[in-house]
Amino acid sequence: ESRLPGFATHQVGVAGAVVDESSGKVLVVQDKNKTKNAWKFPGGLSDPGENIGVTAVREVLEETGVRSEFRSLLSVRQQHQHPGAFGMSDMYLICRLSPLSFDIHFCREECERCEWLPLSELAATHHTTPITSRVARLLLHGLRVGFQHVDLTMEQLPAVYSGMFYQLYHRPLPQH
Amino acid sequence: ESRLPGFATHQVGVAGAVVDESSGKVLVVQDKNKTKNAWKFPGGLSDPGENIGVTAVREVLEETGVRSEFRSLLSVRQQHQHPGAFGMSDMYLICRLSPLSFDIHFCREECERCEWLPLSELAATHHTTPITSRVARLLLHGLRVGFQHVDLTMEQLPAVYSGMFYQLYHRPLPQH
Repeated sequence: ESRLPGFATHQVGVAGAVVDESSGKVLVVQDKNKTKNAWKFPGGLSDPGENIGVTAVREVLEETGVRSEFRSLLSVRQQHQHPGAFGMSDMYLICRLSPLSFDIHFCREECERCEWLPLSELAATHHTTPITSRVARLLLHGLRVGFQHVDLTMEQLPAVYSGMFYQLYHRPLPQH
Repeated sequence: ESRLPGFATHQVGVAGAVVDESSGKVLVVQDKNKTKNAWKFPGGLSDPGENIGVTAVREVLEETGVRSEFRSLLSVRQQHQHPGAFGMSDMYLICRLSPLSFDIHFCREECERCEWLPLSELAATHHTTPITSRVARLLLHGLRVGFQHVDLTMEQLPAVYSGMFYQLYHRPLPQH
């Protein structure tokens, strides 16, 4: 809550893990020009002023054609001197989304493949990135014991100064 | 994990909630020139290339004289058109720290007051900000049932490209 003037040091990227709880499957893509044969979650950079949940839903729709809605924040990665960020730092947030549609119409300019893959398969395969594998294991755990064990839920709160809101993510508090 | 070129849109601020588990107290400050009579956690902006845990420990030491070590990530706040960020966005991360020393020597240029306050008192008082109050309740819950219920733990992982590391924060996975 520092109000000291600062400057932007981070780009923000968001991935959306769309989990279909009824089938235990998750929506994954393989990039066309980047990490070959590696399943990952669709995602991309936030537009200026865009909330992370909005970025996740938008990127999933653009890349895969699947409509979804925000559920929770799952993981945060901080990386410095990011190759894609001109030496700046990168904050990468992975969100859990629920599907609102299932038909895949993926963007052939961005993606080579796009599938609903069983979470158990994504958690076990070597054809993925370390971070995707880790989040797949986290989601598989959530699928088994309940997502409330892995989720950070979001709440919108009014800022101290008038008319502004912020989004706060943390573990759910017990109701009492 | 987008590698598309982007640009920095966010400043990153970090607060450190130093919790003494044996006494149930947390280290809080009151700013000299900002929100009067409001207890908050010490914190400030990350230096370029600085990990959030390092920022938290550094800011706590600079403001209060208390040495501490990083334990976990507790909460993430995203705010757009932040007044202190020249219209850019602000990502604010609250970390849980453990104390390595207890004597307070607070910075009289930045702080009006600095105390070890019982978490139960911070969670109940109106002399605080909404976000501090929320995190105090979260920490009080952690103190009662175990911090593993509120923590995102950190792990350092090697990046795909050589020689780089990133920090990944998520709920702990069960050991098996």
